[in-house]
Amino acid sequence: MNRPIHGGNLAWASAWAGCSPEAILDFSASINPLGPPQSAIAAIERGLEALRAYPDPDYSRLRAALAAVHGIDPKWVLPGNGSAELLTWAGWEFSQQESTALVIPAFSDYGRALGVFGAKVVDYPLSLPHCPLPAFVTGRGRGLLLNNPHNPTGQLWTRAEILPYLAEFELVVVDEAFMDFLPRDRAQSLVEVVGEYPNLVVLRSLTKFYSLPGLRLGYAIAHPDRLQRWQQWRDPWPVNVLAAFAGEAVVGDREFVRQTLKWLEGAKRELHQGLRDIAGLYPLEGAANYLLVRTEGSSSQLQQKLLQNHRILIRDCLSFPELRDRYFRIAVRTPSENQRLLDALASEV
Amino acid sequence: MNRPIHGGNLAWASAWAGCSPEAILDFSASINPLGPPQSAIAAIERGLEALRAYPDPDYSRLRAALAAVHGIDPKWVLPGNGSAELLTWAGWEFSQQESTALVIPAFSDYGRALGVFGAKVVDYPLSLPHCPLPAFVTGRGRGLLLNNPHNPTGQLWTRAEILPYLAEFELVVVDEAFMDFLPRDRAQSLVEVVGEYPNLVVLRSLTKFYSLPGLRLGYAIAHPDRLQRWQQWRDPWPVNVLAAFAGEAVVGDREFVRQTLKWLEGAKRELHQGLRDIAGLYPLEGAANYLLVRTEGSSSQLQQKLLQNHRILIRDCLSFPELRDRYFRIAVRTPSENQRLLDALASEV
Repeated sequence: MNRPIHGGNLAWASAWAGCSPEAILDFSASINPLGPPQSAIAAIERGLEALRAYPDPDYSRLRAALAAVHGIDPKWVLPGNGSAELLTWAGWEFSQQESTALVIPAFSDYGRALGVFGAKVVDYPLSLPHCPLPAFVTGRGRGLLLNNPHNPTGQLWTRAEILPYLAEFELVVVDEAFMDFLPRDRAQSLVEVVGEYPNLVVLRSLTKFYSLPGLRLGYAIAHPDRLQRWQQWRDPWPVNVLAAFAGEAVVGDREFVRQTLKWLEGAKRELHQGLRDIAGLYPLEGAANYLLVRTEGSSSQLQQKLLQNHRILIRDCLSFPELRDRYFRIAVRTPSENQRLLDALASEV
Repeated sequence: MNRPIHGGNLAWASAWAGCSPEAILDFSASINPLGPPQSAIAAIERGLEALRAYPDPDYSRLRAALAAVHGIDPKWVLPGNGSAELLTWAGWEFSQQESTALVIPAFSDYGRALGVFGAKVVDYPLSLPHCPLPAFVTGRGRGLLLNNPHNPTGQLWTRAEILPYLAEFELVVVDEAFMDFLPRDRAQSLVEVVGEYPNLVVLRSLTKFYSLPGLRLGYAIAHPDRLQRWQQWRDPWPVNVLAAFAGEAVVGDREFVRQTLKWLEGAKRELHQGLRDIAGLYPLEGAANYLLVRTEGSSSQLQQKLLQNHRILIRDCLSFPELRDRYFRIAVRTPSENQRLLDALASEV
């Protein structure tokens, strides 16, 4: 089995650790440890009856529920089989631009989506650890694929920093897969300006915040003309009915949101402090539910030791060529799980 | 809401009939009425625990289970989010051929998959009702997209009829979405010759035979080099974990296969005879679990009367320009449901 280029590959990790996938404590995928909420499981169980029918190709109820969250018209929403499916169609659009600006290091699926249809990519390296937005070359025929908060650094750019580029690039896709992890008063989503910029697409994920990555559910917010185009390009039923049921249910679960934001604030602060207290580890500030950590030694050797000796999986950064063997990424988990990681790190670093 | 171009659109039908989607007796989608099998539901319920992890991007267990059905190496199998997702990537390959031969009338999603990336399509009209395979123009740079058994006519071509074309076209994709509905001694699958033709892709569906269209699950069988290419093009986790669990379970459920084939043989024969007994209706012979019926009057008006007066949904053929308003397609359902349809037809034709 090849070394994975995404987090959360428990099949790979368990083969390495010589245990079952369930025995692995997974810090490599940035998934909310409080979920899935009971509201999602109940909706999925109700949905079992609906499996024998095709999904509604308009996904009318799901789109209405998602649109209500953002206070927009459902025509501006397109659900996808995870945001990764929507990224494919963004990649097809980018392939029709002359070039696409990409901040690196970048979530590895961006390279896939841009590469499949031959989009021409211009890399803009970030300066770690403070990661100011690079000075992009803009203009007609140019696209921008941005990730905010940024994965893997956890960097959050403000709306004000990004806005000028919306007027200057011909196509801007902003992946806000982790934006839900920010409290409303600190979030920097571009959803509220989508109505003013027909060249803007915002991608969102439901599976990270609501802990349903196995079910696959994301959505795009953009001008209805563009979404209708995507809808006609892709297959008619990309989102399964159980994901649609779950999506409708969880967006109304305010208590789960409240609990998650409360857990994250305290747990992240403690985990960050605990990492700083270990000599040779240098965690970056992270706006979302994960932390990027610089190491003095080899991070992939550290990954192997944690896996073999502690059945703990962290995300090495070998698939980010800019970070190489000197960084790892970890999800914030529950306080006791975070402590287990800190103890294991303290004994292995 | 626009008139649907696929069967099974219960949201549209229920709006038309003024009732809930559950109250519609759906003959428009060709889904096995005996399913989903209990083995699938049990597997999905077991799978709920796995929702908080990403699917295994290699889908190793699912691929092994599917490969075992056909007695082939798992490397030759690629699961998809329904065969419609795999058709997208077939469409991308066809767009790189000079032209693609398509038998018409054709399942409407073929037009979508060939159109999105601009494949050049050459139509070959079928001669109904006997539907011999057209005399294709073959050669380098030419592709063939074929459907066997054919939808919507129900025509089955023999392996011997198709085989010569495998040597003559540069790329051949055969959609065998309904082949499971044929008993093994009458099936004409090309899976067994895939090893000899690296230019052949066979698409299969699990959702029709096992009544799980809401869950989305299909697979491609083709040379590993091609499947690896598709895997690198598409998003990393197209198949949700519940579909993967269900797929692993159902392919071992021989009792469900036995029951289905037994039901279909008798129910189809009786339904066909019942249709022939109604003046003005002329059912074609159909190899799969659906029948195409020629009408003397307007089939779309008949569809509306069945919906409004009987809450029965049949598939009009307006989206097949070659069939227009003189054909409808119906799934074979249980004997009592088929009788309800026959009674309703007898009163409305």
